[in-house]
Amino acid sequence: MSSPNTPLDLSLDGGALTALLVDLPSVSGDEQALADAVEAALRELPHLTVDRFGNNVVARTDLGRAERVLLAGHLDTVPIADNLPSRVEGDLLYGCGTSDMKSGVAVQLRLAATLAEPNHDLTFVFYDCEEIEASRNGLGRLAAERPDWLAADFAVLMEPSGAVVEGGCQGTLRADVVLTGTRAHSARSWLGDNAVHKAVEVLRRLSDYAPRRVVIDGLEYREGLNATRIDGGVAGNVIPDECRVHVNFRYAPDRSEEEAAAHVHEVFAGFEVTVTDTAPGALPGLDRPAAQAFLAAVGGEPRAKFGWTDVARFSALGIPAVNYGPGDPNLAHKRDEHCSLTAIAEVEARLRAWLTGA
Amino acid sequence: MSSPNTPLDLSLDGGALTALLVDLPSVSGDEQALADAVEAALRELPHLTVDRFGNNVVARTDLGRAERVLLAGHLDTVPIADNLPSRVEGDLLYGCGTSDMKSGVAVQLRLAATLAEPNHDLTFVFYDCEEIEASRNGLGRLAAERPDWLAADFAVLMEPSGAVVEGGCQGTLRADVVLTGTRAHSARSWLGDNAVHKAVEVLRRLSDYAPRRVVIDGLEYREGLNATRIDGGVAGNVIPDECRVHVNFRYAPDRSEEEAAAHVHEVFAGFEVTVTDTAPGALPGLDRPAAQAFLAAVGGEPRAKFGWTDVARFSALGIPAVNYGPGDPNLAHKRDEHCSLTAIAEVEARLRAWLTGA
Repeated sequence: MSSPNTPLDLSLDGGALTALLVDLPSVSGDEQALADAVEAALRELPHLTVDRFGNNVVARTDLGRAERVLLAGHLDTVPIADNLPSRVEGDLLYGCGTSDMKSGVAVQLRLAATLAEPNHDLTFVFYDCEEIEASRNGLGRLAAERPDWLAADFAVLMEPSGAVVEGGCQGTLRADVVLTGTRAHSARSWLGDNAVHKAVEVLRRLSDYAPRRVVIDGLEYREGLNATRIDGGVAGNVIPDECRVHVNFRYAPDRSEEEAAAHVHEVFAGFEVTVTDTAPGALPGLDRPAAQAFLAAVGGEPRAKFGWTDVARFSALGIPAVNYGPGDPNLAHKRDEHCSLTAIAEVEARLRAWLTGA
Repeated sequence: MSSPNTPLDLSLDGGALTALLVDLPSVSGDEQALADAVEAALRELPHLTVDRFGNNVVARTDLGRAERVLLAGHLDTVPIADNLPSRVEGDLLYGCGTSDMKSGVAVQLRLAATLAEPNHDLTFVFYDCEEIEASRNGLGRLAAERPDWLAADFAVLMEPSGAVVEGGCQGTLRADVVLTGTRAHSARSWLGDNAVHKAVEVLRRLSDYAPRRVVIDGLEYREGLNATRIDGGVAGNVIPDECRVHVNFRYAPDRSEEEAAAHVHEVFAGFEVTVTDTAPGALPGLDRPAAQAFLAAVGGEPRAKFGWTDVARFSALGIPAVNYGPGDPNLAHKRDEHCSLTAIAEVEARLRAWLTGA
């Protein structure tokens, strides 16, 4: 794997540059080496102004263009799962972060290095801690602490979208459903009240849950309500007095955060429900002029974004934003995560055409 | 609380001695300090021969009596639950282990200290790791490694029995029921297969289970089948690919270990079931002469023992054995565990009368 001091050679093609980024591990919370390398490479480029805040790096042109376009990507990955260093098989580059989303970061860096005279002013944002709790998200921290750095007329978030424009994003809400009972020795179980057995009704409602599909601006969103974790019990001979079911609700952007929370409370009516984490979705907004111009330039049929992404943060800042990146969203967070080298080149070429065309 | 070096004053009354033992914590696996204190106190008594094996201490008289009676008790407790140090409220001594079974151990120590001329030869056994997996049980290890130390004509196990003779014991079997699925990002849950949701049917069978009651030698046994633990899931945004339900089956002594395992497999038919730990029950055997003589001496109406106890080990060694101790079995392993000081004195007095009478 690359040493933390390996300089990033931005003259490499997008695939080779992705491999270099992947081989410089940057699990959430541990992005400093990669942020240093990105900052150093960008500071070599005379047409860009570079700023840094924590492990977030922002680079800008200042050409006085009528409009400013922002290209954003996160530097972190989920934990490595025996899938480093990267390796190439035919057209596919395998490894942790190939899809989500160092291929997108590589395209950002390639465009930053080569577009000295774009037709819009450009802002490139590289940020940390996207894969963990929302409170640590680098883009969120920039929006709170350095909002002027994010000023733009339109934003492209380069999360994996299969080289197709994905509109908006779904919201996400986490909650704990807590069952309580009474401890007793398991040899005299009738003196206790088993909290784990009570989870049967919670799991039945989850099993029976019929997730909604909803079409917004022509894009179909698919919701989901799932247990992501369950735990209960203290010892092999004790009737458990607590069981906790952690659920994750992914909801279409026509629900607000409040409506999503109310829905989860309604599904688990009669149970103790505590919302632990929540982030709103973003409506696709594909009817707006900036989005229409982008769609016309890069082509293809747009679709809905299922995963929560930071387009919701741009949406909250009043900046129209879409997801468009070379990674495959279905491979994110999997052991066999990989990305098509052709898709990396294609996304770079289409963005280049848009940002240099008339 | 007592320091590990506090000497045990065996001239204290049974209640005060119990408090001293309770305040010397000895959660399973961590009995050394208490075993050291017990050994040191017993070695002060010239009428006893003392042996030690691991954290197991055995003391014997050798008076050439016609019969040998064994009094046994375990030194360990379940984990402390904010219930130390001990405290007295009226006739009740509160604290972890008061009932299960340091009150019984205190009675053993009082009898060991004061019965220099009993009417039977006496063996006092203090052992470790009773509250955890059977393979670590100190009495089991003695039976395997030092069986001659356990030779006896009749055994009294001083587990909590409410100062009433409890016959036999129920068997216990632990098993894991494992559900498997397929991981996926929770934003695209339809690409995964949620292992936690599949536990619904396992919990339904547990909730619906109708435990059997059965009368043997006039004593009524009550079975129970319970989840003691459940766990599944890896992260807040991943569909879980495994969920494990740990179950504990407590069964009447008319079932063999094999029959108990077959029953659990039948209850969870269609699921992956792995038996992780098993120990047979013991039939009450109250019709035997040794048991009858003991019953006549201590009085009262015998009843069934619900909890698994080491009487099953004596039963397997061919030694008739009963449960008789001052603790309350319904309070074992509870936060508010306590023991009646009157019961401690009463059990000591009745055993003393039996072991010194004609």
